[in-house]
Amino acid sequence: MTAAPRADGRADDELRPITITRHWLDHAAGSVLVEFGGTKVLCAASASEGVPRWRKGSGLGWVTAEYAMLPAATNTRSDRESVKGRIGGRTHEISRLIGRSLRAVIDYQALGENTIVLDCDVLQADGGTRTAAITGAYVALADAVAHLRASGALTGEPQARPVLTGSVAAVSVGIIDGVPRLDLPYVEDVRAETDMNVVMTGEGKFVEVQGTAEGAAFDRAELDALLALAEKGCADLTRMQQEALAR
Amino acid sequence: MTAAPRADGRADDELRPITITRHWLDHAAGSVLVEFGGTKVLCAASASEGVPRWRKGSGLGWVTAEYAMLPAATNTRSDRESVKGRIGGRTHEISRLIGRSLRAVIDYQALGENTIVLDCDVLQADGGTRTAAITGAYVALADAVAHLRASGALTGEPQARPVLTGSVAAVSVGIIDGVPRLDLPYVEDVRAETDMNVVMTGEGKFVEVQGTAEGAAFDRAELDALLALAEKGCADLTRMQQEALAR
Amino acid sequence: MTAAPRADGRADDELRPITITRHWLDHAAGSVLVEFGGTKVLCAASASEGVPRWRKGSGLGWVTAEYAMLPAATNTRSDRESVKGRIGGRTHEISRLIGRSLRAVIDYQALGENTIVLDCDVLQADGGTRTAAITGAYVALADAVAHLRASGALTGEPQARPVLTGSVAAVSVGIIDGVPRLDLPYVEDVRAETDMNVVMTGEGKFVEVQGTAEGAAFDRAELDALLALAEKGCADLTRMQQEALAR
Amino acid sequence: MTAAPRADGRADDELRPITITRHWLDHAAGSVLVEFGGTKVLCAASASEGVPRWRKGSGLGWVTAEYAMLPAATNTRSDRESVKGRIGGRTHEISRLIGRSLRAVIDYQALGENTIVLDCDVLQADGGTRTAAITGAYVALADAVAHLRASGALTGEPQARPVLTGSVAAVSVGIIDGVPRLDLPYVEDVRAETDMNVVMTGEGKFVEVQGTAEGAAFDRAELDALLALAEKGCADLTRMQQEALAR
Amino acid sequence: MTAAPRADGRADDELRPITITRHWLDHAAGSVLVEFGGTKVLCAASASEGVPRWRKGSGLGWVTAEYAMLPAATNTRSDRESVKGRIGGRTHEISRLIGRSLRAVIDYQALGENTIVLDCDVLQADGGTRTAAITGAYVALADAVAHLRASGALTGEPQARPVLTGSVAAVSVGIIDGVPRLDLPYVEDVRAETDMNVVMTGEGKFVEVQGTAEGAAFDRAELDALLALAEKGCADLTRMQQEALAR
Amino acid sequence: MTAAPRADGRADDELRPITITRHWLDHAAGSVLVEFGGTKVLCAASASEGVPRWRKGSGLGWVTAEYAMLPAATNTRSDRESVKGRIGGRTHEISRLIGRSLRAVIDYQALGENTIVLDCDVLQADGGTRTAAITGAYVALADAVAHLRASGALTGEPQARPVLTGSVAAVSVGIIDGVPRLDLPYVEDVRAETDMNVVMTGEGKFVEVQGTAEGAAFDRAELDALLALAEKGCADLTRMQQEALAR
Repeated sequence: MTAAPRADGRADDELRPITITRHWLDHAAGSVLVEFGGTKVLCAASASEGVPRWRKGSGLGWVTAEYAMLPAATNTRSDRESVKGRIGGRTHEISRLIGRSLRAVIDYQALGENTIVLDCDVLQADGGTRTAAITGAYVALADAVAHLRASGALTGEPQARPVLTGSVAAVSVGIIDGVPRLDLPYVEDVRAETDMNVVMTGEGKFVEVQGTAEGAAFDRAELDALLALAEKGCADLTRMQQEALAR
Repeated sequence: MTAAPRADGRADDELRPITITRHWLDHAAGSVLVEFGGTKVLCAASASEGVPRWRKGSGLGWVTAEYAMLPAATNTRSDRESVKGRIGGRTHEISRLIGRSLRAVIDYQALGENTIVLDCDVLQADGGTRTAAITGAYVALADAVAHLRASGALTGEPQARPVLTGSVAAVSVGIIDGVPRLDLPYVEDVRAETDMNVVMTGEGKFVEVQGTAEGAAFDRAELDALLALAEKGCADLTRMQQEALAR
Repeated sequence: MTAAPRADGRADDELRPITITRHWLDHAAGSVLVEFGGTKVLCAASASEGVPRWRKGSGLGWVTAEYAMLPAATNTRSDRESVKGRIGGRTHEISRLIGRSLRAVIDYQALGENTIVLDCDVLQADGGTRTAAITGAYVALADAVAHLRASGALTGEPQARPVLTGSVAAVSVGIIDGVPRLDLPYVEDVRAETDMNVVMTGEGKFVEVQGTAEGAAFDRAELDALLALAEKGCADLTRMQQEALAR
Repeated sequence: MTAAPRADGRADDELRPITITRHWLDHAAGSVLVEFGGTKVLCAASASEGVPRWRKGSGLGWVTAEYAMLPAATNTRSDRESVKGRIGGRTHEISRLIGRSLRAVIDYQALGENTIVLDCDVLQADGGTRTAAITGAYVALADAVAHLRASGALTGEPQARPVLTGSVAAVSVGIIDGVPRLDLPYVEDVRAETDMNVVMTGEGKFVEVQGTAEGAAFDRAELDALLALAEKGCADLTRMQQEALAR
Repeated sequence: MTAAPRADGRADDELRPITITRHWLDHAAGSVLVEFGGTKVLCAASASEGVPRWRKGSGLGWVTAEYAMLPAATNTRSDRESVKGRIGGRTHEISRLIGRSLRAVIDYQALGENTIVLDCDVLQADGGTRTAAITGAYVALADAVAHLRASGALTGEPQARPVLTGSVAAVSVGIIDGVPRLDLPYVEDVRAETDMNVVMTGEGKFVEVQGTAEGAAFDRAELDALLALAEKGCADLTRMQQEALAR
Repeated sequence: MTAAPRADGRADDELRPITITRHWLDHAAGSVLVEFGGTKVLCAASASEGVPRWRKGSGLGWVTAEYAMLPAATNTRSDRESVKGRIGGRTHEISRLIGRSLRAVIDYQALGENTIVLDCDVLQADGGTRTAAITGAYVALADAVAHLRASGALTGEPQARPVLTGSVAAVSVGIIDGVPRLDLPYVEDVRAETDMNVVMTGEGKFVEVQGTAEGAAFDRAELDALLALAEKGCADLTRMQQEALAR
């Protein structure tokens, strides 16, 4: 099968235009508006002294995340989860994924008994909201850690050891009409036979691999092609994160 | 008592810098990012065919609103209402106020059996979030109505009667150290002895007056002074709404 | 427009028959069955030692209120909020209003670290339930404070300073067919173009002013007429509260 | 063991003073304030056309009940179930008991596709609230049925067959210090070794028998003594219901 | 009326085949799969140090129970209560019954400040699930108590006093086509005019008697016949419990 | 690093003892007790006519799944989600995974407008509960489909096309002390650096790949080793499923 060219004219292994705007809010310890094409996610990192009860006295910090979507973020308005009185499975799942991804590069001992919460609120959704959220949240987290250090809150840190042991970025890949492609917008996402979200460290190792056959099951060769695309995309995003943090 | 000058140097009857950015989102029928100084509210109007069950077959439309605050919008992070599983009284109260205010300028018959939902999400809070929300939501509503008309959805409209019978804007006023002041930021709001939110039409009539004694009860003269300030502020905001809609 | 005379034959500035029955319950520190015409609200004040966590150690007391309506209180039975599993916006709003109104006349230091909860349960609703609740709750509160004093619980009180710095009463006013009227029963309330609830101290100052345009927006002259009616009604109610407490 | 005489001077087989006040509310199809000593329960019967979905088209009616307690009804204020967001097991259990008891004397066919809801709200609790509720609810139900008949709503009724096939009344009995006693107030209830609630028809048959060993298990002789007391109490209550309905 | 013989060929006073399988789970302090014919209930006793807050420092232990039914346990799949977000009245009622029944044979002082939770999950339902649950839960409880003693956790026990002061078993009885019968399966249960659940100690005393007229009210003679059947059934079950515990 | 041998003596690429017991329940269209070592999951397939509202009239069927864990399934008792009133993120996530996995082998058109719900209740948990659930649920699903066919419910099926287009099985793999291992019990799962759940069709294609770095991120070589182990494990499980279905 030959696939039609991409609607936005991109090459199959090309990311959408990415922007990472730091310090978008006045209050949060770190805040980033991240855009992957039409997808806009506001990532805010709030730091506070202390840790959840089950971790008190351990000398270790904690990092967690909450993901949510504004009702008008999608083409058709969706109901608020606060109004429904319960959080849906998809929201839970993505919040947990973001939290795990960020915790992969945290040195809890260096953080000391501080908690950082990453709120990732999707203002506009056009595919890849969870991967944009992880990519943006890492930058907000880095700013929050710098803020904690500047304010002298990292008292638990032995020998000025860095709190962040690396960086994380994430991207979606998928097979559309038999062709593996990088960073799917909504119109491609709904048509993908296979859909995979990959979270990687700045050093090119895997933190999460979540592949799902939407239509037909996929074979090992297809899996390998998707992993290669994701490695390329995460490397590009890692570079953009570094540039944003250097500004 | 002589009050200290305002921290931001404004005159007592002066609004903060106001910006009204239309078309902030790609999908919503109308969307506005409204800023009253540091307060930023994203107002999105979603239009859909049909009305709630209790109104079906009446030939009349419906307009409603939902207000919410992102967790990191305030100085200290607040818990998500979706996580708590219930909406707080303050949120309920403000959502109802915004809905009532907008419905005051709607001709339901001209709207026909269409529903417009106004989502007002506070991205950053620095006092006056409900009045900013009403002021911005009116502009988003006007855009949504124009969108419905352009798309031919206003079939129920007799003789091209306008759906909007006027405009609404809102502002907060309060007494700080004995001095009545317009458009309170957070630092003034927490110190106000009396706090009033006023919603007015573009023609200078009242839609809502909500005055609350925070410390001491207030007398009729103080009430009159506050109402005069609010009239001035709402007139200014009405002009800015008109300018934004003319752009 | 000339308005028809009132269905119950009252003058426009006349209250319905008001009864305030103290000690309606055996257990509560204060309890009042208050009736504004057909509206019957049972107001019970429960006093307990201690304050909510966020206030512990401050030496200050706390007063709060909860409003609810029995399912059969209205013409058409309404579902229980306990069965629905969530409290509606209207209930939240009124509970908060009653609490704020009563707190306006409390000297927290004189109360010491005691909490008084005012439960206002509407047994029968015929308009003005929130204003009847406030008017009755004040009397129940006064009884509860006297009970605390008699039982020696006001240990935090400096120099026998009174806990209550004044009294509060509340009344609804509205414009029906262009005519401003006092204390609206249900049949008038549903037809009112403008509806206002006013809470005042016994000294004639304002604690809350909540005016809402139900149909058309109202101008300053109408607002002034409504405020004058409310001042008259609250003065009448204050006198009845004093008589009840003197019995 | 010899038991001390009852605190209120009653004989062991004597009811507390019982009052049954009909038409306590203006709106409900039937409404009764029932008092068993200090226990006061407001029983309101609301009738509406139609039946729950699972019963539609069957030609049969439906009767159900909801029991609740006001927060200040007991010595120590209890939290509202609407505030807690869930109904407790005890409330569920008693609501179901009242509903079953009333349905035992309903001819669903004669009722036709109408629904009657009995709301039993405890205004003051002093033991025996569920049995007072059943006894009062029956009278409210009888008034509601008469109201339906008078308004011509009983169209489904074949040959003017009565909707009520009998009456129900209920009473609590228990063993205190080895002595079986009728109609326990709170002070006896908390000390009872065995506690039984019995619902009977006016003809002296059993509808519900719910006996619980609170302390030690009870033998067959004790069970028989309790049943005999309950038969006496229910017969007395049946007579009082008839007198109330005859007024 | 002459009743048809029982579908499973049993005599009217005969139990279904009963099996009590101990140690069905590896982790729980006690665990029993109990079967009353087609009814299968997994009863697991979990022991933990400490007691609920309201009991701390009393030196007394606590025993509680939770009953639930798997969705596919019945002929027609029922919705999960976790999905519905609330526990139904029937579930609450049965959980409370099981807890009360077991607490009737517990010496709290001998148990010391330990808590035992009995989880009774119905894997398959064919009538009598609550009585099977009580009968099986007692055996699981006995195993849990033995486990606590073996692990040295019963430090609060004076003079090695037994924690269990007796045993409990339960059975359902009912009247079908005028004939009293023991241990009703589903097909009999839905047709029963009267339905009674009886909980008894191993010594033949009553812990709970819960009789309900499903169709017509029942008279004293019928009640006596049902109680006699229940006494027979509980005696049989007590013997089987003893045999199971002796294995 | 050299890893210690496995506690249960297995080879690194060896499954635990697996048992698949069909027809464990009497009512469900298909029911399987599946055991992976100490992990026991009861999988019940309930079939019903009709589909959810959003799918009505499409001619297509629906398959969904719900996963839950009994409170006593784990070493330390966990609270019931029905008691907490909300379903946790992990439960949601696994329910969704099971549903997606089974839907990968369903021909909705052949199923016609029927719904099959797979309830997977963990009776005892010792690692790999989600993969055991998928493996068992497939067998229960196959039985339910056969049941529907036998009862003539597959009327929508064109030319007797099979409803199941293949089979699915799932297994967990992980890296412990640097060594990739198949089918982790709890003691290995908690120590794994990387943990992956893989769902595959009987033909050896991938349906889901979910890999998570618990400690350090993993490289491509480790990922490849885990995938190879999973392919071996799923092939073994597929053979056992076929044997069970052939019995």
